[in-house]
Amino acid sequence: MSLLVVGTVAFDSIESPSGTVDDVLGGSATYFSYAASFFTKPRLVAVVGEDFPDANRQVFADRQIDTAGLTTEKGGSTFRWKGRYHQDMDTRDTLEVHLNVLATFDPKLPASYRDSTHVFLANSSPQVQIKVLQQVTRPTLVMADTMDLWISTERDALNKLLPRLDGLLLNDGESLLLTDTDNIIRAGERARKLGPKFVIIKKGEHGALLFSDDGVFMLPGYPTSQVIDPTGAGDSFAGGIMGHLTQDTSPPPGRLRRAMAYGTVVASLTVEGFGLERLKRTDRAEIDARMQKYREMLAF
Amino acid sequence: MSLLVVGTVAFDSIESPSGTVDDVLGGSATYFSYAASFFTKPRLVAVVGEDFPDANRQVFADRQIDTAGLTTEKGGSTFRWKGRYHQDMDTRDTLEVHLNVLATFDPKLPASYRDSTHVFLANSSPQVQIKVLQQVTRPTLVMADTMDLWISTERDALNKLLPRLDGLLLNDGESLLLTDTDNIIRAGERARKLGPKFVIIKKGEHGALLFSDDGVFMLPGYPTSQVIDPTGAGDSFAGGIMGHLTQDTSPPPGRLRRAMAYGTVVASLTVEGFGLERLKRTDRAEIDARMQKYREMLAF
Repeated sequence: MSLLVVGTVAFDSIESPSGTVDDVLGGSATYFSYAASFFTKPRLVAVVGEDFPDANRQVFADRQIDTAGLTTEKGGSTFRWKGRYHQDMDTRDTLEVHLNVLATFDPKLPASYRDSTHVFLANSSPQVQIKVLQQVTRPTLVMADTMDLWISTERDALNKLLPRLDGLLLNDGESLLLTDTDNIIRAGERARKLGPKFVIIKKGEHGALLFSDDGVFMLPGYPTSQVIDPTGAGDSFAGGIMGHLTQDTSPPPGRLRRAMAYGTVVASLTVEGFGLERLKRTDRAEIDARMQKYREMLAF
Repeated sequence: MSLLVVGTVAFDSIESPSGTVDDVLGGSATYFSYAASFFTKPRLVAVVGEDFPDANRQVFADRQIDTAGLTTEKGGSTFRWKGRYHQDMDTRDTLEVHLNVLATFDPKLPASYRDSTHVFLANSSPQVQIKVLQQVTRPTLVMADTMDLWISTERDALNKLLPRLDGLLLNDGESLLLTDTDNIIRAGERARKLGPKFVIIKKGEHGALLFSDDGVFMLPGYPTSQVIDPTGAGDSFAGGIMGHLTQDTSPPPGRLRRAMAYGTVVASLTVEGFGLERLKRTDRAEIDARMQKYREMLAF
């Protein structure tokens, strides 16, 4: 069993009520693979520019993340994002986006990645996501993220992608937009009819919902009083889910639910520091201890 | 064991994306006692005007709600509220408030109510809530609701009330206001330091949090795709909690948690119709069946 992620590696500059950081290592593939690395050895596909320092490559190496698929584009600059979180930590403004090498990124899988069993297509155009998927020989579980932009502008391509997915990951606003409803429960049920076997709707601090053949499953967010930087929470959640699924050999009923609980716990750690700062200070033992606490907080 | 509620009985006029109703039976004590009546026989204290029809009294009688404490003020008119829900069903505008008989309401407990063991002080000025409490001989569990108005304008009286409470019920915005923080987890912990043994923070469709000696407990909302009218959801939640607690003789650990789950289930039924319409069509068997479904939706 092997887990592949295709997404972004970025330099993030973040302003939050807790402080400011510049040019920290971020991006969907970064958070996803880092979160997943507590459970499995993920394979990463992304592109960076010549400005990407060795110290950042070492961050992946330290977690045994396979970077055979991390391309460095000659003469290019790494994707940059700058954002500011509001006081409620729930909403943010994007202040700057410099796509740089991302603008022309056409992901090519190394031969050694083609046998990946678990695939996560982080947010990018559905056309690119389909092209990636075509390069995987026989995936057993494919999950994809998307965003309002593609739902609005690339609907035909998205409609082609959705039936090829096992799981679709959306936030609450995206789920309503995709299914043209104002109720999140209806949205989850309708989204499944567009093709994916299961749909996960993320509600930020309020947790997540799963819609599958198994009915509805709900998880509240892990309650943390230390929200420093919400960047990467959604991708860490996905990384925890897919990472845990990749190494979980127990029978299916409940497997996805358990994986979502692990994703929730890892995401709750992510937001307790800027960038990867908090995740760098955790380990599987702390994650398991927090999971135990989480279970106790949900028991009745 | 006997449950007392002191609050409002009202005529509500409601506009929601699902339709419009005029002058339906509402008010905090109405929703609370109706929800609690599926578990126990609540005692109601409230005031109405001469315009209050027998048909509405029959609504209480049909659920064996004790209305010895329902005063009819001669020449007075019943409290009226008119509101409009936005498309998201989460926010509402108050269009009209006519306090009428509520303006001078000074609740007096009938002698037969003074031995109540469980007391719910629905939202009203903390001075009135304290006066009510003084009329109960020896309550074993007192829970109170409040609102932003009293937190802002009656802080001294509120500070006197809080140490007399077992439980304090707040919504998320109120909890942040009361404790001057922007994080709901910190708010719950700080609110306990003001006196109540436990604090319940309501998050609407996103569920509720409990802060007690037992740590943090979380419940997501029951997922319903049929949100018709959110009016009374919070008071039904409280009624389900207190109703269940009043008749639950199992040992304490977990008793409050279970009661909160029942409150969540009853509240989810409330919002599926205008006013009491949906609650009138339910029974304990349906509530228990939904509870079983709820447990299954939370298991992992």
